[in-house]
Amino acid sequence: MAEKLSENHETLVQSLLGGSRRAAARMITLVENQSANTNELMKLVYPHTGKSMVVGVTGAAGSGKSSLITHLIRKFRDQGKRVGVVAVDPSSPFSGGAFLGDRIRFQAHALDDGVYIRSMSSRGYLGGLARSTSDVVRIMEAMGNDLVIVETLGAGQDEVDIIHVAQTCVLVLTPNMGDDIQAMKAGIMEIADIVVLNKADLDGAVNCLRNLEATMHMAMTHKDSGWAVARIIPTVASAPKTEDLQGIDELVAAITAHQAYLHESLVIERIQAKRIEQELSLVFRDEVEKFIFKGLSGTGKKRQYIKEILEGSSDPYSVVEEVLSTFLKV
Amino acid sequence: MAEKLSENHETLVQSLLGGSRRAAARMITLVENQSANTNELMKLVYPHTGKSMVVGVTGAAGSGKSSLITHLIRKFRDQGKRVGVVAVDPSSPFSGGAFLGDRIRFQAHALDDGVYIRSMSSRGYLGGLARSTSDVVRIMEAMGNDLVIVETLGAGQDEVDIIHVAQTCVLVLTPNMGDDIQAMKAGIMEIADIVVLNKADLDGAVNCLRNLEATMHMAMTHKDSGWAVARIIPTVASAPKTEDLQGIDELVAAITAHQAYLHESLVIERIQAKRIEQELSLVFRDEVEKFIFKGLSGTGKKRQYIKEILEGSSDPYSVVEEVLSTFLKV
Repeated sequence: MAEKLSENHETLVQSLLGGSRRAAARMITLVENQSANTNELMKLVYPHTGKSMVVGVTGAAGSGKSSLITHLIRKFRDQGKRVGVVAVDPSSPFSGGAFLGDRIRFQAHALDDGVYIRSMSSRGYLGGLARSTSDVVRIMEAMGNDLVIVETLGAGQDEVDIIHVAQTCVLVLTPNMGDDIQAMKAGIMEIADIVVLNKADLDGAVNCLRNLEATMHMAMTHKDSGWAVARIIPTVASAPKTEDLQGIDELVAAITAHQAYLHESLVIERIQAKRIEQELSLVFRDEVEKFIFKGLSGTGKKRQYIKEILEGSSDPYSVVEEVLSTFLKV
Repeated sequence: MAEKLSENHETLVQSLLGGSRRAAARMITLVENQSANTNELMKLVYPHTGKSMVVGVTGAAGSGKSSLITHLIRKFRDQGKRVGVVAVDPSSPFSGGAFLGDRIRFQAHALDDGVYIRSMSSRGYLGGLARSTSDVVRIMEAMGNDLVIVETLGAGQDEVDIIHVAQTCVLVLTPNMGDDIQAMKAGIMEIADIVVLNKADLDGAVNCLRNLEATMHMAMTHKDSGWAVARIIPTVASAPKTEDLQGIDELVAAITAHQAYLHESLVIERIQAKRIEQELSLVFRDEVEKFIFKGLSGTGKKRQYIKEILEGSSDPYSVVEEVLSTFLKV
């Protein structure tokens, strides 16, 4: 039975390496559900990863990330590159979370065999969205995508974890975001390699650009990759006429330049090591929790512990100590 | 030395139970930094918790959560209740993340001895913001606050974890939030017990209210507490004149009614058990990770593992297996 399963796994991985969308979809579903043997599958996938560009695009809902990504897909497709997109933002048009018009617009790429788009709902990954996303990006790499784009909302710690899979992080701001800028600044700004001010045709954009550049000058000084964000790229990703689009080529050039920098400076090696470190941490956490809770629920002990805590005869910290001493070789 | 430390702990906890703001501040800092012996401290705090109302207020940056909370503080203070606020939203005026005018406005409460406000920056809790928040709420309960309000941004998995500490969850929407509503719907809507449409004086509010109520009718059917969100409360929490404020009393009444429901129906017991279950999970995850990584970095093995993975001779899944078999009693 185990033999059979692993044979299936190998066939699945072979199809994936050949670029099969069906194999990718199947595998991503297995990873999302954390089915048994997911780790065995990922072990087969892993050696075929690590060669793709991984670009994160992060920003608030409504900032136009998906429109920008649509243009990026087109531009990189024109260069003959295969592109994968992992949409973690539940409000993304790629996630089917937006209005019908948007959905249709973004599905134009669905007919292109060189583009593979997958959305991760933010449901059902308690404690594991970052890990699942990390695995899905690896699957998209093994599938043969030269570029994998990860779209995330730029708020919350989980989001910051997710964006660490990216080698190049593009932060999308808009002139009308107001308070959101504060939220952004708190966590995301310092990991951004490229900053875009989208909707640059809105009123107040020029002022906003100037203010942001002044603020950012300080925030960017301490980036440990040695890369400096020289300026903010104003873009218009959504316009009725193509000639009204702005900044798309500049954005493509910036991404390409950042990638070139990473490889020339060998900083890419440090980034890859960091990514592995984070993967280790995510997989550890998941596996240990599974192991321990499997042990607990098997004996009905978990309910007993909760009862004791409710009654005041114990507390979570003492319970964890007790369980650790049971399961860990201390 | 250990004797001395635990003596200090006991003094600290005694001061906390007496309502000392200094003791609370000191203890929260210890918890935030996950200093050694934090668990010992929390074991002393824990028995004095579980009696407060815990109300979550969640919504996008700029939705006016902090203004609403300021009014809630005032109303519950008028009832003679002591109020604690934990602001997790980094863009919150309580977090000092907003404009000066706001900051001054919110600091009015700083002079009131019955109000204790603490903001959690979203930095420096890799994997642990939810756990730290949970501990800080417990500390605020032990401090003698009758009501603890937790303010969060309503996006991201981490946020959903955090909001689980609350018994009553207030979701704040605004007419102008557009795409954000999609994000909200994905994760938060179904855990909301009370829904507010703030900025109800904006254009389009009436339509928005009608649409939301239609959408929500379906979303709310499956709440397992048996509580139904009867309607959305329109509020105006920010207005130059006090008489232009709207819906504040209705919101206070709704919170009071929901709390009464929880206690009469005994659903409160299930909610408290759920909260403990989540605490167990958060503490477990943290402690196990600390334990294992301590073991790893002590032997310099972690770097070696990363090197092997980078070189392609191993992968994270195999490493985790190996480490688990070293540390766990399998």
